[in-house]
Amino acid sequence: ASKMTDSALVNVDLGERSYPIHIGEGLLTKTELIRPHITGRQVCIITNETVAPLYLEQLKSALPDFEVLEIILPDGEEFKTLDSIATIYDKLLEARFERSSTLIALGGGVIGDMTGFAAASYQRGVNFIQIPTTLLSQVDSSVGGKTGVNRPLGKNMVGAFYQPSCVIADTSTLKTLPERELKAGIAEVIKYGLINNRPFYDWLLEHVQELVNADNQALTYAIKLSCEEKARIVAQDEKESGIRAILNLGHTFGHAIETAMGYGNWLHGEAVATGMVMAADLSWRLGVLSHEDCKAIKVLIAQAGLPVEPPSSISLDDYISLMARDKKAEGGNVRFVLLKEIGAAVVEGNIDSETLKETLKAGKNLTT
Amino acid sequence: ASKMTDSALVNVDLGERSYPIHIGEGLLTKTELIRPHITGRQVCIITNETVAPLYLEQLKSALPDFEVLEIILPDGEEFKTLDSIATIYDKLLEARFERSSTLIALGGGVIGDMTGFAAASYQRGVNFIQIPTTLLSQVDSSVGGKTGVNRPLGKNMVGAFYQPSCVIADTSTLKTLPERELKAGIAEVIKYGLINNRPFYDWLLEHVQELVNADNQALTYAIKLSCEEKARIVAQDEKESGIRAILNLGHTFGHAIETAMGYGNWLHGEAVATGMVMAADLSWRLGVLSHEDCKAIKVLIAQAGLPVEPPSSISLDDYISLMARDKKAEGGNVRFVLLKEIGAAVVEGNIDSETLKETLKAGKNLTT
Repeated sequence: ASKMTDSALVNVDLGERSYPIHIGEGLLTKTELIRPHITGRQVCIITNETVAPLYLEQLKSALPDFEVLEIILPDGEEFKTLDSIATIYDKLLEARFERSSTLIALGGGVIGDMTGFAAASYQRGVNFIQIPTTLLSQVDSSVGGKTGVNRPLGKNMVGAFYQPSCVIADTSTLKTLPERELKAGIAEVIKYGLINNRPFYDWLLEHVQELVNADNQALTYAIKLSCEEKARIVAQDEKESGIRAILNLGHTFGHAIETAMGYGNWLHGEAVATGMVMAADLSWRLGVLSHEDCKAIKVLIAQAGLPVEPPSSISLDDYISLMARDKKAEGGNVRFVLLKEIGAAVVEGNIDSETLKETLKAGKNLTT
Repeated sequence: ASKMTDSALVNVDLGERSYPIHIGEGLLTKTELIRPHITGRQVCIITNETVAPLYLEQLKSALPDFEVLEIILPDGEEFKTLDSIATIYDKLLEARFERSSTLIALGGGVIGDMTGFAAASYQRGVNFIQIPTTLLSQVDSSVGGKTGVNRPLGKNMVGAFYQPSCVIADTSTLKTLPERELKAGIAEVIKYGLINNRPFYDWLLEHVQELVNADNQALTYAIKLSCEEKARIVAQDEKESGIRAILNLGHTFGHAIETAMGYGNWLHGEAVATGMVMAADLSWRLGVLSHEDCKAIKVLIAQAGLPVEPPSSISLDDYISLMARDKKAEGGNVRFVLLKEIGAAVVEGNIDSETLKETLKAGKNLTT
């Protein structure tokens, strides 16, 4: 019995700051979903040069009665800077946007993070709606309230915890997403099954190809489950002091791969995919995870068309020094998210360094 | 019976985010007051080139067991910018300051506003202690949680509401403050009497000269009463949507004077002092305030050595257009804080424009 539907709704329960996530096809133009969450009469849509030609006019058609300002930023992680935020502030000031105005993020994670931080700080806080247009941002940035920008010395080191009043995850936008980016988003979807939900992992085994094909019902279900899982974890730990760390499964290895290969060469989701295979391998070598589960994880990730082998060009020393710089390091001790079984993650700070090296040296031969 | 004491404590009651304000002489070096509010072992003191030679070593002597980083910024409102904030972020990142670290603001309003915003946004929020060293910042920035920076198109248009974990108002620091700045701070002290506390106004009539002389007991009492008044008003309206607007008594006229004369030529407190005389005059002309109270207000402000006459160089048209730009304007309608009597303020949006012009034209002859 499939639980799949054409559209879905997730309520993120944060007391006064609770908000809905609407998921489904063609939601971008549904005035009745967006309008109840707009305060004031001034709306600023912040998007980028890639997304604007595809969806900006559609979104504007859903906002006929508002004073709409558009800010179109260049596309790319390298523009996730304080300078871009300053541009947003100044365009809002020039157009005399008041404290009652609403900012709408139309784009992927970079646009969402920057718009959220601008909303958190313009006039000390204005209303904010998120319309994520990539699978990664629909399952990741929709929940958690993390906003911010990069500095030369660190990614996401500046920002605010700031919640949107509403999220619209329009699955139609995924049809124009490059297949490689769609697959990178699927890596984060798989993560939610692995860390906290075995039945969802089982569902993924059956339906992963439909996700790769951008099937609406499969995407709607996967986004809904992912947002629910993340919301459940974040509700227990809004400011990220404990349990929320399990969301970083595969990220310690993944960040090392991203940095070593240079940002943009491996997509974040691709690096996390391989990082999850490495985390599973480490969990198995430490005697925490069964060999069977360990192999099954690698099989699912490969089925999604994601890389399961780390690049052979990264040396052992590179890994060690890159991981020590990871911001999850505390007091010099790198913390890893391990799996006890599929659907059950645990955070561990004291990893035997010889076992860790075995995982890093295994390279292409992880968990065979 | 004087209620004056050598030191005082105000508790700002904001539920989970409540914090103490310690007021008195020589508190800067009292480890036992500061230490309980420091999280982690990394402390960054942010100050400026004027204050650092006077008090930085004193403060450091109170923090013997911490890893202390110092950031010394240039002095002045023109440095209250995103660039200064970026400097703070980068020095924190360079020194590998973690999420558990504490920022301490040592200086006047500019340092306090910037340090608060940096604390609100570094790693999405770190702990923050305020040590205001001017009378204005001790009575104004100590309460309310407003932090932020300026943009070329607007003052204080970017920032966050972010509460310190503790405020230390050391009255010794006021002995090195230029007399003109001390008097400018007294303008804000008088404001609290006028808007909400007639007995405090009566106390000021008797003790204003002691404040000008930087007498510790008089200052401690005036700072305590001012912080209590502001805390009472802010507690009712933390995010500034209603009653909190009465804190802007004299500010609509004052901002017009500051802007017309060029920032720095009239100190903020001086412009507010004259602005309060103008607000009283307007209140009287509108039949809201008695002529006697109106005259008494001017007398007290003059006694404090503050200006009670607006500069004659500002034309009627200049006033009107500058006030329309004031951020307290909503939907084009400038809102004024009026006095019904000494100790009772009210916010009014529909001011008869002819009466307003009479106040503006009265110039040197306000309320005679």
